[in-house]
Amino acid sequence: MSDEITPTGAEVKWEGKIIRAGTEHFRYDDGTEASRDKVWHPGAVGILALDDEHVWLTRQPREVVGTLFSLEIPAGKLDVLGEPPLETAKRELAEEIGKAAEHWEELLAFYTSPGISDERLRLYLATGLSDVPSGAPEEEDERIEILPWPLGRLDEAIEQCDDAKSLIALLWLTARTGR
Amino acid sequence: MSDEITPTGAEVKWEGKIIRAGTEHFRYDDGTEASRDKVWHPGAVGILALDDEHVWLTRQPREVVGTLFSLEIPAGKLDVLGEPPLETAKRELAEEIGKAAEHWEELLAFYTSPGISDERLRLYLATGLSDVPSGAPEEEDERIEILPWPLGRLDEAIEQCDDAKSLIALLWLTARTGR
Repeated sequence: MSDEITPTGAEVKWEGKIIRAGTEHFRYDDGTEASRDKVWHPGAVGILALDDEHVWLTRQPREVVGTLFSLEIPAGKLDVLGEPPLETAKRELAEEIGKAAEHWEELLAFYTSPGISDERLRLYLATGLSDVPSGAPEEEDERIEILPWPLGRLDEAIEQCDDAKSLIALLWLTARTGR
Repeated sequence: MSDEITPTGAEVKWEGKIIRAGTEHFRYDDGTEASRDKVWHPGAVGILALDDEHVWLTRQPREVVGTLFSLEIPAGKLDVLGEPPLETAKRELAEEIGKAAEHWEELLAFYTSPGISDERLRLYLATGLSDVPSGAPEEEDERIEILPWPLGRLDEAIEQCDDAKSLIALLWLTARTGR
């Protein structure tokens, strides 16, 4: 097995509002070459927001998979140039569920689909929650429903959830608490 | 909040070897409309393959995220037209780690990145493992390393893993076994 992989070029074939898509080329250090479909993504954050009794979830539309009520943790894309991921997480927690958190900890970071996309998501644990004054909701936020989900019913949340980042957060919590 | 969402059209702007990318348009039942970047993906399977002492993992190149040694469960795309997902899972388990399984159970299904992609992955539990005769390895399989990972060291696998589907499988296993 070779030990290195060198990108040798890429063709971006389409640029959307958030992502770009095209082909990237590589050379292994044994001389063989490969080409891969690739989606370039700015990256994202997700927040496991806990108080003593609840994990804070949302239901929101995910148009491209045909559902209006995807059960998810609060999350957002790294779509503000130069904003550190932790700041994005704090902003999204306030915008999506109207909360601030006293304690923040990065739990895990992962690629959502590393065969085809460079989207990397950082998952934060947020505790010590308090309300923040709500500003004018953004257009897309009007469709987000806020759900304080009882910690004693984590299994039901996992059953209803079909979003990878949220499953990782809920399974991490289940593994830690032994519920 | 509206109760329905109707796709009103789509433009595929690029077609790769595996995925397509472009824009899809929607109308909510309150009359508002939206457009979204979209990646069309054929779907995938992942396999949590267990014997009494190990979970069977792989290390393999993931060129588009720049790593040669991504720690993952066996997995594959639904890239054979008309093949049922369970058959794909059986084929991938044989091709990637040379095993067959007596018992199969679908554990979870999820979208890897539902804001931008319709990729849905079915996760199977495979037990009662036995060796299958290895055929000629496919070109891409030559770069897959097989790792029987001790169940007593699941925490280390989770630490080293940054692939969403594999984290879901390993965290599910940790939650179930209480390790």
